[in-house]
Amino acid sequence: MKLFGTMNNNNGILEIGGISVTDLAKQFKTPLYIMDQALIEKNIEKYKNGFKSDLFKTAIVYASKAFLSKGICQIVDKYGLDIDAVSGGELYAIKSSNFPMDRVHMDGNNKSLEELEMCIDYGIDSIIIDNIPEVINIQNIASKKDKKINALLRLNIGIDAHTHEYIKTSKNNSKFGESIYDNKIYKTMETIINSKNINFLGFHCHIGSQIFDMKSFYEAIDIMLDFSQKISLKFGNIVKEINLGGGFGVYYTEKDVAVDLEEASKLIIKYLEKSLKEKSMELEKVSIEPGRSIVANAGSTLYTVGGTKETYGGLKYIFVDGGMADNIRPALYQAEYEAAIVNKMNEEPSEDVSIAGKCCESGDIVVKNYKIAKAEIGDLVLTPTTGAYGHTMASNYNKCPIPAVVFVKDGKAKISIKRQSYEDMIINDDFIEL
Amino acid sequence: MKLFGTMNNNNGILEIGGISVTDLAKQFKTPLYIMDQALIEKNIEKYKNGFKSDLFKTAIVYASKAFLSKGICQIVDKYGLDIDAVSGGELYAIKSSNFPMDRVHMDGNNKSLEELEMCIDYGIDSIIIDNIPEVINIQNIASKKDKKINALLRLNIGIDAHTHEYIKTSKNNSKFGESIYDNKIYKTMETIINSKNINFLGFHCHIGSQIFDMKSFYEAIDIMLDFSQKISLKFGNIVKEINLGGGFGVYYTEKDVAVDLEEASKLIIKYLEKSLKEKSMELEKVSIEPGRSIVANAGSTLYTVGGTKETYGGLKYIFVDGGMADNIRPALYQAEYEAAIVNKMNEEPSEDVSIAGKCCESGDIVVKNYKIAKAEIGDLVLTPTTGAYGHTMASNYNKCPIPAVVFVKDGKAKISIKRQSYEDMIINDDFIEL
Repeated sequence: MKLFGTMNNNNGILEIGGISVTDLAKQFKTPLYIMDQALIEKNIEKYKNGFKSDLFKTAIVYASKAFLSKGICQIVDKYGLDIDAVSGGELYAIKSSNFPMDRVHMDGNNKSLEELEMCIDYGIDSIIIDNIPEVINIQNIASKKDKKINALLRLNIGIDAHTHEYIKTSKNNSKFGESIYDNKIYKTMETIINSKNINFLGFHCHIGSQIFDMKSFYEAIDIMLDFSQKISLKFGNIVKEINLGGGFGVYYTEKDVAVDLEEASKLIIKYLEKSLKEKSMELEKVSIEPGRSIVANAGSTLYTVGGTKETYGGLKYIFVDGGMADNIRPALYQAEYEAAIVNKMNEEPSEDVSIAGKCCESGDIVVKNYKIAKAEIGDLVLTPTTGAYGHTMASNYNKCPIPAVVFVKDGKAKISIKRQSYEDMIINDDFIEL
Repeated sequence: MKLFGTMNNNNGILEIGGISVTDLAKQFKTPLYIMDQALIEKNIEKYKNGFKSDLFKTAIVYASKAFLSKGICQIVDKYGLDIDAVSGGELYAIKSSNFPMDRVHMDGNNKSLEELEMCIDYGIDSIIIDNIPEVINIQNIASKKDKKINALLRLNIGIDAHTHEYIKTSKNNSKFGESIYDNKIYKTMETIINSKNINFLGFHCHIGSQIFDMKSFYEAIDIMLDFSQKISLKFGNIVKEINLGGGFGVYYTEKDVAVDLEEASKLIIKYLEKSLKEKSMELEKVSIEPGRSIVANAGSTLYTVGGTKETYGGLKYIFVDGGMADNIRPALYQAEYEAAIVNKMNEEPSEDVSIAGKCCESGDIVVKNYKIAKAEIGDLVLTPTTGAYGHTMASNYNKCPIPAVVFVKDGKAKISIKRQSYEDMIINDDFIEL
């Protein structure tokens, strides 16, 4: 198992943020989401060091769908990043953290009228428009409230770059954005420009997740700039900003060579500056929307072993006290994770095991065929890199309470999200009249 | 779209339980889980009519993981069924519904010590033991409390029957139960028999989900009875009960010919009676654990159309106000559903569309390539057969609140689970000291 951030093997016991996993398990119980605050900050700093330019303003917009709590909002605020929301619930949670709402952006393919109202009432920075009906809704609502709202238009630029591959294909059928190859985009642009309560800023794109090849981003930049130029020629110099979305690949297993966030940011800036010069173009601002790459490797999930089993078929199982309810990614995306018995860090990994969750479902396997030290009941298993899309996708399947989230730093552990109680799970459940 | 239960096209508007979907949407908002109470009751009655014998007692054990609320527990109680739980959270929810705990059974591959304590403290009927470490834990806890607890042992009988197929293969590597082909099962049996605080009743198996071929069940019965006889020969006449698990297939789309619950129950009883006579065996009790087949077709999800889009690639999208947060099954299992514009029931389905959710993820498609009437913003879309594993697997992904659940019957709509509020989603979220 690869160690991240402040992870440290202290005499055979793993420490994160200067606290041993055995202490964390004792104090907070398991399953437990552990966030390495220093590593989150380091990831943010890498972006801040790399994603800046003398030619244009830059914004690093944290994609809160990856992980959202008051704590992460506090950190993101402290470092001056913006935040991206994709729903009313996210807007509400971000506002509850006292995050400055004028640094909030709203994404999503199907924003409800209530959500658009929230955007305007909360005074967020900008809405990323997805489609024509949305333009009309925004204009109507903003007009009624006598407000003007900044907006970018999400483009479908026909690139689908994901998971080690570089494909330029079916993205034309994505549910997101308006295709730049479709002539109706000019009609959409006209509608936006003619909407008096919408202040058009520029374009947004997002070409995928877990992208490891910078060429995907370069091509996205080329397309975004060419299209911006085309639009400016047609409608006047109206494209002031582009937002390139997220997608930097992170390490989950040995198959992944993580993107260096600072280096990659610098490469994007360099390519942008060169391209703008070549095209004699100017932009006021360029934004990116990292989520996973800021929190994934800073988060881990700590489990306790409740049992072991060797099947008649010869498979060794380690049973842990969590599973698909707290991490759906293995079942949902066939996502792979590493793992270790973290109270036995000095013991050689010697057994090929499958780490199975406690959900009543065969598919509830956290890690398949991975070598770990010999496990006994009561041992602690840790899966790293669960900081993104772990807690945010958690469910109460099998009525498993959502685990607590603790931030650890400099020997201190701070509860960010308390463990859900049994009672919490049924607060809205009432008797019916039969 | 196939209509189920009390669904009725009343002048172009769908009614369920005598209430129009437009009224339901007005009163409870969308997305909304709608449970057709009369159909749940009818499904239960089919089991009750079919699953009874003069040779042995029978128990129909509702698998609450499929759908759990106080309301469903009330209905299950009223009809005299037992209930199956797989976690402390489920036990807690069932107890909160005032369900008689002596009709509760506890399943699961990794029950924690706390959960086993709950089983004994709550006075449940029986624990389905999964493995040897569990036997030891149960004995220790029950002995400390000076209680005796009934138990069955979950067997892995080497059958994997699922989704239209009849395969007898890799099931040997399932995480559940103890293999009957592995000699260590006799050691396990000895340990159970020698556990003074465990009252061994018999064996449990579960051969899969969505099973359409009765032959799978017959083979399971053969194996269970043969093994029971083998054990009784070795250890005396100790097998009094067998539990055959769940698995009857339900209709999701035209590909599925639903199992007739009464007919299938009768066939199982008949096969059991015949087999017992042939083998000169006696059993005191036989149980089954239906979940999906009691609630799946009684539940629907009602959405509002927020937008439509035709992509450059030619795909027509209908955007609804829910998605993978309230129904993960399409993304998780590639599960297919039917759908209709239920305020336009008299309009011919004319457009092939994909019904996409509002989550910020390309994979958030509720129904792919399905023909429905021409949709406009504000129309109501209904996906039937979401009654099982819809609400129980729901998450707050993208901070989507979990929709309300209403039971409808005889023109009355009764809130079973209130809609989660934005505030509900962050009640455990605190500020941290930076």
